[in-house]
Amino acid sequence: MKVLVVGGNGQIGSLFLEQVRESTDWDPVAMIRKKEQADKFDQMGVSTVVGDLEWPVEELEKVVQGHDAVVFTAGSGGSTGADKTLLIDLDGAVKMMQAAENQNISRFVMVSALGASSRDRWNADLKPYYVAKHFADDALVRSSLDYTIVRPGRLLNEKGTGRIEVGEEVERASIPRADVASALIEVLRQPGTIGKSFDLISGEQDISKAIEAL
Amino acid sequence: MKVLVVGGNGQIGSLFLEQVRESTDWDPVAMIRKKEQADKFDQMGVSTVVGDLEWPVEELEKVVQGHDAVVFTAGSGGSTGADKTLLIDLDGAVKMMQAAENQNISRFVMVSALGASSRDRWNADLKPYYVAKHFADDALVRSSLDYTIVRPGRLLNEKGTGRIEVGEEVERASIPRADVASALIEVLRQPGTIGKSFDLISGEQDISKAIEAL
Repeated sequence: MKVLVVGGNGQIGSLFLEQVRESTDWDPVAMIRKKEQADKFDQMGVSTVVGDLEWPVEELEKVVQGHDAVVFTAGSGGSTGADKTLLIDLDGAVKMMQAAENQNISRFVMVSALGASSRDRWNADLKPYYVAKHFADDALVRSSLDYTIVRPGRLLNEKGTGRIEVGEEVERASIPRADVASALIEVLRQPGTIGKSFDLISGEQDISKAIEAL
Repeated sequence: MKVLVVGGNGQIGSLFLEQVRESTDWDPVAMIRKKEQADKFDQMGVSTVVGDLEWPVEELEKVVQGHDAVVFTAGSGGSTGADKTLLIDLDGAVKMMQAAENQNISRFVMVSALGASSRDRWNADLKPYYVAKHFADDALVRSSLDYTIVRPGRLLNEKGTGRIEVGEEVERASIPRADVASALIEVLRQPGTIGKSFDLISGEQDISKAIEAL
């Protein structure tokens, strides 16, 4: 399986790529904005493709072409303004969905945010970000893609525990990024996750079993 | 006809309210954020209702209740950041649509922006704003509302000319806000505009006839 990781240079993206190399026989490809970012991935044995979410859909089609699945874990991040949230987290995500649809790449896994699905659960301090994630997720559900939407809680840089809790609506809690990465691999392994959206936090259940029980 | 004007305190909103008072027997109501803003409207003979697009849908339902139509001409404006663009121009607009749907108020007229419908026509300097308008318009088209989407070009504070050009895609040009206000009245007068979206600039045609020919 050739998996394009949009946001491969981000923290979850990098952990996901490492784990894919360690524990699967898939062929992961990191989308990077500049050729200069390729070194890190070359050393990991991960291929790269240059692409920018501010490009038009037609250009993104060339990037996505030939892959079997897209994992979208890009984010404009906390250091840029809400203008980039609109351009990247919302419009960039939707353009990538359209590019995948146009290239008949059906599998699309989105990393969203806990509670993004309902307005009354949006984090008050991050509301503009939640608006963008909410409308991007909404577009994915309406698309023709075989989607899964993963909504992790507050992200930690701790070591993964291998234990999670998933559900339509779980309480606000945290999760190590490494466990989010492992959950994404399980999502891609289990076709039963197609058409599903879920909150994800640290918990008691084995990752594979928790995802299977969704 | 009881028309709720969301953004009644804005420039197009105020011109629209004046013209409605002068040339129709409708009962226009301005949505204002604070009671203190009511004076200006009292003097115009326009009723007011307090409402804020950052409120939840349930609260906006109480505001919209009892009206026959909504004209949405609110905008977070150039002086606030893109965080407000996400909260007001996108999510605020969509919440107002949902409030109208829930209260069975079917008529909804949206003031959008020229070219908002296709990415390759977005103004490069205002892209984040266009993302918000695009996704709000898209939500309106998908709603159950009797919508019309009016996409004016660059807005001028000149006197209205009474002459416009409308179309699915017209060249980038300007239009006095007073003519946009007149066009909105014609849209509400003509049920044939339901389900239509159009660009709007200054032109050669009489406003009423141009809208009728859509």
